[in-house]
Amino acid sequence: MILNAAQLCKLLHGELVGDGEKKIHGPSQIDKGRPGTVTFLANPKYEDHAYTTNASVLLVGREFVPKMPIQATLIKVDDVYGAMMFIVEKFSKNGTPQPGISDLAVTDPSCQFAPDVSIGAYSFIESECSIGSKSIIYPQVYIGHGTVIGTEVIIYPGVKIYPNTQIGDRCIIHANAVIGSDGFGYRPNEEGHYVKVNHVGIVIIEEDVEIGANTVIDRGTLSVTRIGKGTKIDNLVQIAHNVNIGDHTAIAAQAGIAGSSEIGKHVRIGGQVGIAGHIKIADRVEIQAQSGVHTGKFGEGARIFGYPAINYNDYLKSYAVFKQLPDYIKRIEALERQIASAKKEKE
Amino acid sequence: MILNAAQLCKLLHGELVGDGEKKIHGPSQIDKGRPGTVTFLANPKYEDHAYTTNASVLLVGREFVPKMPIQATLIKVDDVYGAMMFIVEKFSKNGTPQPGISDLAVTDPSCQFAPDVSIGAYSFIESECSIGSKSIIYPQVYIGHGTVIGTEVIIYPGVKIYPNTQIGDRCIIHANAVIGSDGFGYRPNEEGHYVKVNHVGIVIIEEDVEIGANTVIDRGTLSVTRIGKGTKIDNLVQIAHNVNIGDHTAIAAQAGIAGSSEIGKHVRIGGQVGIAGHIKIADRVEIQAQSGVHTGKFGEGARIFGYPAINYNDYLKSYAVFKQLPDYIKRIEALERQIASAKKEKE
Amino acid sequence: MILNAAQLCKLLHGELVGDGEKKIHGPSQIDKGRPGTVTFLANPKYEDHAYTTNASVLLVGREFVPKMPIQATLIKVDDVYGAMMFIVEKFSKNGTPQPGISDLAVTDPSCQFAPDVSIGAYSFIESECSIGSKSIIYPQVYIGHGTVIGTEVIIYPGVKIYPNTQIGDRCIIHANAVIGSDGFGYRPNEEGHYVKVNHVGIVIIEEDVEIGANTVIDRGTLSVTRIGKGTKIDNLVQIAHNVNIGDHTAIAAQAGIAGSSEIGKHVRIGGQVGIAGHIKIADRVEIQAQSGVHTGKFGEGARIFGYPAINYNDYLKSYAVFKQLPDYIKRIEALERQIASAKKEKE
Repeated sequence: MILNAAQLCKLLHGELVGDGEKKIHGPSQIDKGRPGTVTFLANPKYEDHAYTTNASVLLVGREFVPKMPIQATLIKVDDVYGAMMFIVEKFSKNGTPQPGISDLAVTDPSCQFAPDVSIGAYSFIESECSIGSKSIIYPQVYIGHGTVIGTEVIIYPGVKIYPNTQIGDRCIIHANAVIGSDGFGYRPNEEGHYVKVNHVGIVIIEEDVEIGANTVIDRGTLSVTRIGKGTKIDNLVQIAHNVNIGDHTAIAAQAGIAGSSEIGKHVRIGGQVGIAGHIKIADRVEIQAQSGVHTGKFGEGARIFGYPAINYNDYLKSYAVFKQLPDYIKRIEALERQIASAKKEKE
Repeated sequence: MILNAAQLCKLLHGELVGDGEKKIHGPSQIDKGRPGTVTFLANPKYEDHAYTTNASVLLVGREFVPKMPIQATLIKVDDVYGAMMFIVEKFSKNGTPQPGISDLAVTDPSCQFAPDVSIGAYSFIESECSIGSKSIIYPQVYIGHGTVIGTEVIIYPGVKIYPNTQIGDRCIIHANAVIGSDGFGYRPNEEGHYVKVNHVGIVIIEEDVEIGANTVIDRGTLSVTRIGKGTKIDNLVQIAHNVNIGDHTAIAAQAGIAGSSEIGKHVRIGGQVGIAGHIKIADRVEIQAQSGVHTGKFGEGARIFGYPAINYNDYLKSYAVFKQLPDYIKRIEALERQIASAKKEKE
Repeated sequence: MILNAAQLCKLLHGELVGDGEKKIHGPSQIDKGRPGTVTFLANPKYEDHAYTTNASVLLVGREFVPKMPIQATLIKVDDVYGAMMFIVEKFSKNGTPQPGISDLAVTDPSCQFAPDVSIGAYSFIESECSIGSKSIIYPQVYIGHGTVIGTEVIIYPGVKIYPNTQIGDRCIIHANAVIGSDGFGYRPNEEGHYVKVNHVGIVIIEEDVEIGANTVIDRGTLSVTRIGKGTKIDNLVQIAHNVNIGDHTAIAAQAGIAGSSEIGKHVRIGGQVGIAGHIKIADRVEIQAQSGVHTGKFGEGARIFGYPAINYNDYLKSYAVFKQLPDYIKRIEALERQIASAKKEKE
């Protein structure tokens, strides 16, 4: 969607000062404004930027009077923040696919689609899937046999979903994420060769979950890998087979959770954290980035850090000493010399 | 595939107790049973679950007599474990593509395909490729020029394979993995700008290798990046250019191996491990999760841990002290005070 | 492209010794030569390999006289290295798509394409995009609304680009990378549920940037995530929202940079490094693999290591002591015993 300044002004019930023909395709920040965008000045602290911004349109309060010439077209409004939120919301729909199933998608007659779903070109949907109302499947998505997708779900391009996955209402899955791949499960035989364990479990993603780009969630072995409702998962995260993640938990980029572990509710997992298999993380635990968690002994709300992870403050205190270790060694050696010479003296 | 309880019972030569019409689309665990699945009770320890499971069908031994009402339809069989293995195997084929080349795939006339290969819609296969008998290429796969794929290979949706890759018999490559991308190789020029080193080597994946979702294996610079036979690689793993991995090695999720390193046979690499470039890891070495391996000095079968990695037990012992460091510092300070006061006394 | 030995010899103005019919599809290293490839012998130190290589063709100097029978066809040339570089360059173009827009791609009439662009099958290009001269879009690529792509850009199969992204001249983006996904931004409400922050910013990738396979770069929240010119990013890297990366910086595989951080020019970031959000890394800083950087206090050109990262040499010195900690504890305990017994004596 592209609007010109005058059209935008009308939508905002504002007052136009300057060129109404300038074309706008999205919002920007005042200090990083780009031609073709609209930005805003709400806090007088940032007024200097108003005179230098490259944004084409600048939202200001009704009472704003420039102290210098301004290149941007001004739109004067009553509530600058409110107007800006309206704009962000409006342009965030930019390029959103329309309802309808592309002629260039493959879908099986056994599938059940709500009448207002959108399925993009080059997407492939296997037999016995169902997709709920207002859900959007972008192009180039693969959805395996028997998958059930709720309402108002958004699945971005290139996402691959293995069979029998369940995805709750209002979930968002970002590009090239993979849901339901086989877990890393093998039995070594007598020669130490790995024999594959068949994975026939599934992934259940409850409502309001968001999953980042290129993240992978493996299916259960026999049972379920579950992502609790409202949980948010960043990019490039690994969730192994049979993991059970509670509600409203946040997992930052590149973290990994090994097989069969259970994560509580409202847990916060930092970037690149590793969590060992078969452990249980209590509710509201907060795990600092890059930590390695090998045990579930930490109580509710604990804040942990380190490799292996310990109490956050304890790690910081130990690490403070770690940085001084060469000095402390010198002090130990000095003590040894003093005692040795004291002994010698005595003899 | 969907069976009803009566059909399933017949396949298992069992005895039906209850509603034979219940529909089954897969197996589950007794304590996590879902409607539409079949589960089993083999160990009497878990009998309580039999009365509460949500699974539609429950496999039990011939002699089983319920002590309470059971909602699930029962199928009584001689060998409960054997029957369950049969079921897991049967449903694991669910949704598997049939042989045949989709009209919606692009293939080049110069390619050689066994008559029973399966190539899915929206897959693109460049010139001079060959694919062996019973191999399955799911939809949306890209296979670069001159790639050679063996028999009974499974390539899941969205996998991208660069030119001239070789993939052995019975390999499995999970969704959105990338094989044969250019290595991270540049020469800085006088101004410190990076000049790309052309990568014209290849990737050779030997037989019985499994590669996880979103994993990346870079091609050799001039020569070969090799994955030895029977090696299993988890999701989101990075294998850099010219790496050589031995047979029957296991690499857990999010591990990374830098350029030109050589990994032995039967090595076990934990999740998020990093291995530096140009080093050699001996056979049967076991690397604990998140370790950083900077040297190849560890002997065959060594178990290592840490950052940088050292002997596993040594790391644990040192880390045990690390956690107590603030206390030890107090003890050093106490010693210093005692010696200082002893000295003073003497004067 | 496949050449036989005689054709190759002619291109190199060389002298053929042996079978001119052997078919060549690429280069290889002498010690890892494969049938169907050409290799070279420039350094006499490696002459032994000439008699055992499996390569089909061997480039040698004009004066080379074999001491034993050689299976490979020889091509004698004046400048062996120069000839080999010519060959590497020649075959590196192998399988490169031709200009033209595939009938099997979807493009919007509002897009502007230079006449010599290549757009592969099953690629989908949304409205109001532009693509510059000689750029190559491989199959199965998705390009969101309003994206601007420069000249001589290469976008490999499966790349997904969100709306309004800007990609500079001569950039290379490897398979299944994702550019412009929503950042990991939420506001917790009173119940601790996460409310999504709309992301309407963009990604700007300047000229001569290379981005690895399965790497993810999130869009700005309101403003821009920027990758400076000449910067090279390896596979599976995470670049969060609002990050600003300077020119000619190198980021190795699986590194992650959290939101709103600023990275200088000519910085070198090792594999699996984590950089916290909202910090600033000075120019030419060198960060050792797996380090966790929590502060921007390091000066230009600093070399850092550790978790959290400190000066490289300091970390190594402290870690050297760490490895000896159990011994040092024994020395502290010995001191304590000596002082205790000295005290006792005195009493």
